[in-house]
Parts: sequence; C-alpha cells; structure tokens
Amino acid sequence: MDPYGLRRVLSPPGVLPQRADVLDPRLPLGDDELAIDVEALNVDAASLRQIEGAVGRDPARVGAEVERIVRERGKLHNRVTGSGGMLLGRVAEVGPRHPAAGTLSPGDRVATLVSLTLTPLALRRVTAVRLEAERVECEGRAILFATGLWARLPDDLPERLVLAVLDVCGAPALVARHARPGQRVLVLGAGKSGALVGAQAKRSLAGRGEVVAADRSEAALAAVRAAGCCDRAIALDATDAVAALARAGAAGGPFDLVVNCASVPGTEMASILCARDGGTVIFFSMATSFTAAALGAEGVGKDAHLVIGNGYVPGHADLALDLVRADARLRSLFERRYAR
Amino acid sequence: MDPYGLRRVLSPPGVLPQRADVLDPRLPLGDDELAIDVEALNVDAASLRQIEGAVGRDPARVGAEVERIVRERGKLHNRVTGSGGMLLGRVAEVGPRHPAAGTLSPGDRVATLVSLTLTPLALRRVTAVRLEAERVECEGRAILFATGLWARLPDDLPERLVLAVLDVCGAPALVARHARPGQRVLVLGAGKSGALVGAQAKRSLAGRGEVVAADRSEAALAAVRAAGCCDRAIALDATDAVAALARAGAAGGPFDLVVNCASVPGTEMASILCARDGGTVIFFSMATSFTAAALGAEGVGKDAHLVIGNGYVPGHADLALDLVRADARLRSLFERRYAR
Repeated sequence: MDPYGLRRVLSPPGVLPQRADVLDPRLPLGDDELAIDVEALNVDAASLRQIEGAVGRDPARVGAEVERIVRERGKLHNRVTGSGGMLLGRVAEVGPRHPAAGTLSPGDRVATLVSLTLTPLALRRVTAVRLEAERVECEGRAILFATGLWARLPDDLPERLVLAVLDVCGAPALVARHARPGQRVLVLGAGKSGALVGAQAKRSLAGRGEVVAADRSEAALAAVRAAGCCDRAIALDATDAVAALARAGAAGGPFDLVVNCASVPGTEMASILCARDGGTVIFFSMATSFTAAALGAEGVGKDAHLVIGNGYVPGHADLALDLVRADARLRSLFERRYAR
Repeated sequence: MDPYGLRRVLSPPGVLPQRADVLDPRLPLGDDELAIDVEALNVDAASLRQIEGAVGRDPARVGAEVERIVRERGKLHNRVTGSGGMLLGRVAEVGPRHPAAGTLSPGDRVATLVSLTLTPLALRRVTAVRLEAERVECEGRAILFATGLWARLPDDLPERLVLAVLDVCGAPALVARHARPGQRVLVLGAGKSGALVGAQAKRSLAGRGEVVAADRSEAALAAVRAAGCCDRAIALDATDAVAALARAGAAGGPFDLVVNCASVPGTEMASILCARDGGTVIFFSMATSFTAAALGAEGVGKDAHLVIGNGYVPGHADLALDLVRADARLRSLFERRYAR
C-alpha cells in the first residue's frame, strides 16, 4: 500500500509527489491506485498566463509547452508559478484496494479534486487548446493515489458549472460543520465560494439567525442576494478593518461565525474584529496571512477560534452540487457567471 | 469608549494603531484606558539586530535610536522589521471604565502582552541599554487600550523566567481547550512553547493517553522529557514529511491532536500527515504558511481540523505561570534555559 504515491517519485528521493521534481506515470498500476483516461486538463489560471507569456498566446505553442512540461516532469507542474490545475476523464482501471473499488467502474466520468502538481500524468497527444476556457483537451493517462480526491461528473448539470462548483466545494462543507441555528453569520466576499457558503449557512441556520453577505461590489452583492444566499447584504471594503467593523456593527453587531471568502490580501483584521468574543473565523481566502491572523487576534485581545479552511471535508463535492441543484436561483447565478 | 485606541492614531487617519504611522501618547487618559509608568522595554530580537546593524552595537547609540523612533512615531515600531516587543512597568492610572478597574491599582507591576507596535509610548529618557538581554531600561509612559492584554508580574518567580513564559503563554491555554483524556498528542518542537504545551497536554490527558514530543535536537528532547513534558520523545526532522510520518507511525500511529511549535518553515505537511482523519492540528509556529497547510491537507485528502494558534485565550498568563509553578522539573528547565 502506498497511499501518498511515494514509489512514483523519481527525484529527489523520499519527498511527497507534490514536492517532487519528476514522477513516473508509467509504472504498472498499484493495487491501491486508480487510472484515468484523460480527456481534458483545466490549467490553473496563473500557470496558463505564465506559459502564454513565455511562448505566446498561440494554442499550438501552448499545447506544445504543456506536452513538454508533462514529458519532462511526469506531471503538469509549472516550475515558475508552482501551480497545476485539475483534470477530467474516464476511469480506466480501479485497483482492487483503492478506496473507490466497488464505487467507480471503468468508463465513469470523473474530475480530480487534487492538484495536477502531484498527479502522475503521461500524454499521448494534445488535441485542442481552448485558451479562453483555460482548457487543454488531450489523450493521456493519469494516476490517482488512494488519498487522491475525485468527484463523479453528474449528467444533470452543465460541465463548466460543475467544475466551478467543485473548485470551491470544501468551503460550504466546512461551514456546514460550524454553522448552527440561531447564529449570526457574516460571509466576506460574494464570489463563487461566498455564494455557496452563504447558501449553506442559510440552510444550516434553518430559519433562525441571520446570514449577512459583505463585499465591496454592489453588483456581486445584488447577485448573491437574488440567489437567496443571504438575509442581508452590506457593501464594505474588508481591507479597511475599522470601516468594516463600523458597517458590520451597524448591521447588528458582532457575529458568531465569520467566513472569509475574500479574494484580496489584508482582510484578516476585519474578519477578526467582526467576530464576537468566543466566536469562530474560518479563512478560505488563499490570500490569508497566517501571522496577520494569529497576531491580529492577540493584538486586539479577541478570543476567537481561528480556522484554516481545509479544502477537503468528506462528501464535499456532493454537498456543494446539491446546494446548486436545490435552488433554481443559485443554479441560475452559477450558470450566468461560470457556465456560459 | 474606544477599545482599539482609534482616537490616538495621528496618521494615516482611520487605521488601527498597529498599522498607524504615528500615534499620540500624550492625550489625556481616556475613561477606558490604562497608563503605565514604563521601567523597561523588551525589544523584539529582529528589531534590535536591525538597529544594531544601522547604528552599531553600542548601548548609547542603540538607546538614542530607540528614543528617536519613539519620538517620531509615538510607539516603538521598527520601520524596517515591522516588529516591536513588550514592556514592563508599574500601573500609573486606571481609567474607571477600563476592564482592569478594580483589579489593578497604581503601583502594581505589570507586563504588556500586546506588541509595542500598537502601544502609545512617550519616553522621558533611556537609563540603560542591556544588549545581551535585549532590554532598554527607561523612564516613560505607555497607554493600554481596553482590548490591550497585560499580566501582573508575580513576586515568586524570577522576572526573566516570567517573561519567557508570558511570551508563549497562549499556546498551553489553547491546548487546554482541545486536549482530552484518552487522546494521543504529538508536540512538534521542544523549545519554550513546546515544553509548556507538552506540560499542559499531560495535565489535560490526566493519565489516559499519550503525549509524544518530537524535535530534531536530541538535547532539547532530553530536556523536555526530564521536565515531565511528555511520555515519549522521538527525534525527527519535521521538514521531511515522509520521514517524520514514518517515525511518528513507529511511535504508535496517527495522533488525535498535533501541536506545531516548530521554529522553522516547511513543517505543515508533517503536522498534517501525523494527524488521524478527523483529528486536529494547531499551528503555533510563526513560520506556518497558510496555503501550505490548507492545500497540503486537501492534497492528501486529510479531513483534519486545522487551527491557527491565536495568541490570546482568557486566563492564558496565569495558566502558563501555574504550569511552571506546579512542577519543579519544568521550573528548573525554564530557569536553566531562560533565567540565567
């Protein structure tokens, strides 16, 4: 058993696949591995911009560069940005001791929910490059380890909508663990994860308590409000902690749960100040500074429970997709924003 | 009421004191403020090294530079390192609406537990500079806001020992909230906070479960073991996640609670891999990378509760000092390491 895929690390020896320079995608399938016939790579936006900068915004050249990286490293791991992306394909083979044995069968369409930076990959050829969709269509084979997360692609929702939801599906699932009826919940950021978090918080509160959405964009706020993702929406700039505290205070005072889904740096203090003593702050923003959060709370003597938003909670993909299925307004928001 | 000290911010307007360029330490004392006659500044090590580099390792020049910074900014906030330190002194005056009214009286000796980077300070003169102790003795006045943390300096313990304990007192207090009898607890790092965390974990487990200390220094491990801060000690390098997992596995398998008190970067994955599914990881190391923790857990499909170690938990100073008082071996460790 090799749940982390250590035997596929060619160099340097002894590191995890994500930190490896080169992986071996061609070893025979392990008993606890899963093989995927790859249809498309969704390339991380930062990586794609870097590749375009290096070889030009030309589909053929971008495709050749992707092939070169994968040939060299055995994975699509951009050396400059450090990022990868995720992939779509059909199950080719399920090892008898892989956790999905009995659940997945050859031919099932799946998306991987782990980064391409740790996914062994061999490409036969790139068939099309769609720069605007950040997507490289291809033929190839990828390996998922026993710990590697995946989601079955449903038939009833547009694929691009599904990918947009899966990208942030850990956020509503973690909020479901923390939100309780009667609470006051503040969601900072009205983007993709903010919308799903708000929808889950509304569900968890079950009509008791209040979900407040905050963003600096009035348009984004109007959209999540219309989609039923909040009880109230307030415009504020979360990088201005003092002003944000005043706005949140005017909206009913401190919150039991603050969920940071902001996309910009410098929003840690606003999150902490808006939480009540004894409350919880969950940080999902990848722009979060660990020290700004830890020292910020201490600096204002705030006894708040500070949580790093782990992207994985069991059942997260189904939970997030079900949120979108359950509410036509939310589904419509995602279709308009992400599935055109 | 002005719990965050906003009225003392001179520039730029509207920010919190920590982010301010200049504070006004000379305003009349507010109803919810506390004034301290300062005896000594414990200058942050990084700040002191920078000042020495700029003006030379000369006590008189360092003292003059500290006076210059405080005169210019109204606080000891090093512009290069962004850091401050903490201070010791005697209570001069307690505003009637300050939370310590009724608890503290003029003349009481206290230490501040909030950074000098947000503490309004006016110096009359520097009286002595002790570079080896990172200490500037002085006469001056400082202001604590209602949210500013402080601790009464006890008579029964050496002052340097007390300061060493107060520096990390949030860690054992937060562990007391998470550790439960029967758990297996792993403490990464056998320094100051690791020792206190181990001692608290032993207490919280009440004889059921196991506390394992891990560090790459055999000497540090021997010291915390002799001080009764663990049931078992294992030597490992937490920056090598794969090797650390193997060592921790050999010491009994995954842990319910992993507490990261390491002082080096790159230990997030080892912390996450050593936790069981459904377990908790608390990060106290200021070298923690938020994204390495969040994405690392997702990358290996680990459903762990990831916690940012908030430096403030109510009662943290007394809890940590009581740990040292309660065990002669632990007290002896701190006296040898920090109070010579």
